[in-house]
Amino acid sequence: MISEKMRPLVENNSAIRAMFEEGKKLAALYGRENVYDFSLGNPNVPAPSAVNKAILDIVTEEETTMVHGYMSNAGYEDVRDAIAQSLNRRFGTHFRLENILMTVGAASGMNVILKTILNPGDEVIVFAPYFMEYGSYVRNYDGVLSVVPPDTETFQPDLTEFERRITEKTKAVIINTPNNPTGVIYSSETLEKLSEIMRGKEKEYGKSIVLISDEPYRELAYDGAEVPYVTPFYHNTMVCYSYSKSLSLPGERIGYLVIPDEVDDFQAVAAAAAIANRVLGCVNAPSLMQRVIMRCVDEQVNVDAYNQNRELLYGRLKEYGFTCIKPQGAFYLFMKAPVDDKEFCQFCKEHLVLLVPGSSFACPGYVRIAYCVSYDQILRSLPAFEAIAKAYGLGGNKEGDA
Amino acid sequence: MISEKMRPLVENNSAIRAMFEEGKKLAALYGRENVYDFSLGNPNVPAPSAVNKAILDIVTEEETTMVHGYMSNAGYEDVRDAIAQSLNRRFGTHFRLENILMTVGAASGMNVILKTILNPGDEVIVFAPYFMEYGSYVRNYDGVLSVVPPDTETFQPDLTEFERRITEKTKAVIINTPNNPTGVIYSSETLEKLSEIMRGKEKEYGKSIVLISDEPYRELAYDGAEVPYVTPFYHNTMVCYSYSKSLSLPGERIGYLVIPDEVDDFQAVAAAAAIANRVLGCVNAPSLMQRVIMRCVDEQVNVDAYNQNRELLYGRLKEYGFTCIKPQGAFYLFMKAPVDDKEFCQFCKEHLVLLVPGSSFACPGYVRIAYCVSYDQILRSLPAFEAIAKAYGLGGNKEGDA
Repeated sequence: MISEKMRPLVENNSAIRAMFEEGKKLAALYGRENVYDFSLGNPNVPAPSAVNKAILDIVTEEETTMVHGYMSNAGYEDVRDAIAQSLNRRFGTHFRLENILMTVGAASGMNVILKTILNPGDEVIVFAPYFMEYGSYVRNYDGVLSVVPPDTETFQPDLTEFERRITEKTKAVIINTPNNPTGVIYSSETLEKLSEIMRGKEKEYGKSIVLISDEPYRELAYDGAEVPYVTPFYHNTMVCYSYSKSLSLPGERIGYLVIPDEVDDFQAVAAAAAIANRVLGCVNAPSLMQRVIMRCVDEQVNVDAYNQNRELLYGRLKEYGFTCIKPQGAFYLFMKAPVDDKEFCQFCKEHLVLLVPGSSFACPGYVRIAYCVSYDQILRSLPAFEAIAKAYGLGGNKEGDA
Repeated sequence: MISEKMRPLVENNSAIRAMFEEGKKLAALYGRENVYDFSLGNPNVPAPSAVNKAILDIVTEEETTMVHGYMSNAGYEDVRDAIAQSLNRRFGTHFRLENILMTVGAASGMNVILKTILNPGDEVIVFAPYFMEYGSYVRNYDGVLSVVPPDTETFQPDLTEFERRITEKTKAVIINTPNNPTGVIYSSETLEKLSEIMRGKEKEYGKSIVLISDEPYRELAYDGAEVPYVTPFYHNTMVCYSYSKSLSLPGERIGYLVIPDEVDDFQAVAAAAAIANRVLGCVNAPSLMQRVIMRCVDEQVNVDAYNQNRELLYGRLKEYGFTCIKPQGAFYLFMKAPVDDKEFCQFCKEHLVLLVPGSSFACPGYVRIAYCVSYDQILRSLPAFEAIAKAYGLGGNKEGDA
């Protein structure tokens, strides 16, 4: 019954599902509060109170058939305009409502872009470590993923290798900053160099190469770190945004695409993207949530809560002797595994600590710790992390640990 | 920039878009209330008051990170269970939550099924007239649409031609009852015959053939007409349902799939469908709306309002001399065009009446009138319909009309 394309996804999925089921079993055996689940990117910080207030106000103030009704496949015009104006205020851009297309989250936005531009065999470049789902999105449209190996010193993109990988078949490049799973942010200098390379290759091959910027973590940056807006760097940039993390609404599936005027064939691309949104079956982004965004366009979650988690976890892991870079943004910490990452995750699970192996992000030898959990869960998990470190003989430079 | 697959969609879309823009122009010129737009299936009857009450209650009573958070890709288990129980109560079925997968409306549900089962070149049979988007959904997965020509006497499926069209490449059959655009309902007898043919062909070719029942209009049936539940007739049936019409929530994108235990390879199909829901970018159906369905599972819109529209419009159109069958369900009336359907739509537009040509449903010579508008709009439009009838010399059997 299952299509050829879905078969490997089902087989591959069962391993993850088995892990998930094991986690549930552990929780049943030892009690939920004694299992330290750092595997999922499901925000623990609640949506700002303005979100629920907006829902209540909309339901009582706005006209019901409009609130729950169809609108243009691209979304309500007033919502798109509000988002364009907000971006312009914050980043000095010059977007109009025609540059904004409301989507069922960023994942759907990525599918919309890839359906719009990919022909079978087109190559899409990603930088390891990368969010594994990108591969599925690209293969949905018979594209081919081309992976730039990780620079495990800095986890910044290896631009020399990147330039080498661009071929005449390259149609798109995906970046994700702040990054899942590393938490690094690409600097203006990095974006400038990356753009220069892409401009050069566009000229060399006489074709358009699209830069897809997947930005669900844009608002989660720490220590005043700047997350440069990408569209001014490179003309063929399209942005996938989601409110899943910035407003803690991952289940609501609300986000948008930015397709700037500067994109080649802008009119056709914008029209095709709206149609792709429809024929992929989304039709439009959920209507009530669009109305909510209209009223909450400049709101954001309490980033301090994530920062407290980051400081506590990073500080203690270093203290216990683990190796990791300090995340600048997002809510993930990418830590070196003292042994094979899958073996390490297995060992951690025995200590009731659930992590995701770096292999799942094309970067073996590391593990991802999602710290979008309660501060209390991190506190309670620390003895387990310490015991794990000791078991591997880490923390040798402190008294009596080795 | 645009992919080969999207190009015809963009070109084809521009004609519809031009018509839509023309409608807006007409409204600006003559006033919105003097333009009679029957082109769209956007419900005018508001959602039951229980829906907005449920939203208010959920936001104040349920835990925010749960209401707006991620859940399983298949949806909240309690919501899926509530739907299964409701179906069992109403149709004597035996579904469990594992048979229900929450989707971003029925359009997305169709995409999920087709992605799950189609290999390139697989044929999918539809009965004309049919909702044009089916073709796009099938082509998304490189399937090939096979169209059974319409029986314009009854608009019931032509089962002789259907049997002839099933080949060893046939993977699925799509039915839509109550039907868009004709309003007909398939009887138990029809479903039984159709199922018999499919069982025979499954045996003949030694393969599974899936019956996809697209049911957004299930709850809209008039004069006590029965809409038989399809799964008991045929083992490989999957149902695409949406609350767009039954609760007037088309913008919210909330619906579900039913994948019964009897489907071949049930476990694999159900697992693959949940993954397809994720990798197509939906991830899950909008979370707050899932919670709303939990509380409104047995609610429905005021069907009487649509029935009043139906009676008024059908009665008058017949009186003016038009030819049409009386719709048994849904909120469309499929009327014979006295001349070429596109030419007729053009003429109607000059009388400020906006209709969709039957050609857009693979059934030229007819027009679709969406009567999900206000009763008042229908009343106001009657002189225009009468004038149009007179212009074509219809209604000849009444005094002095010919």
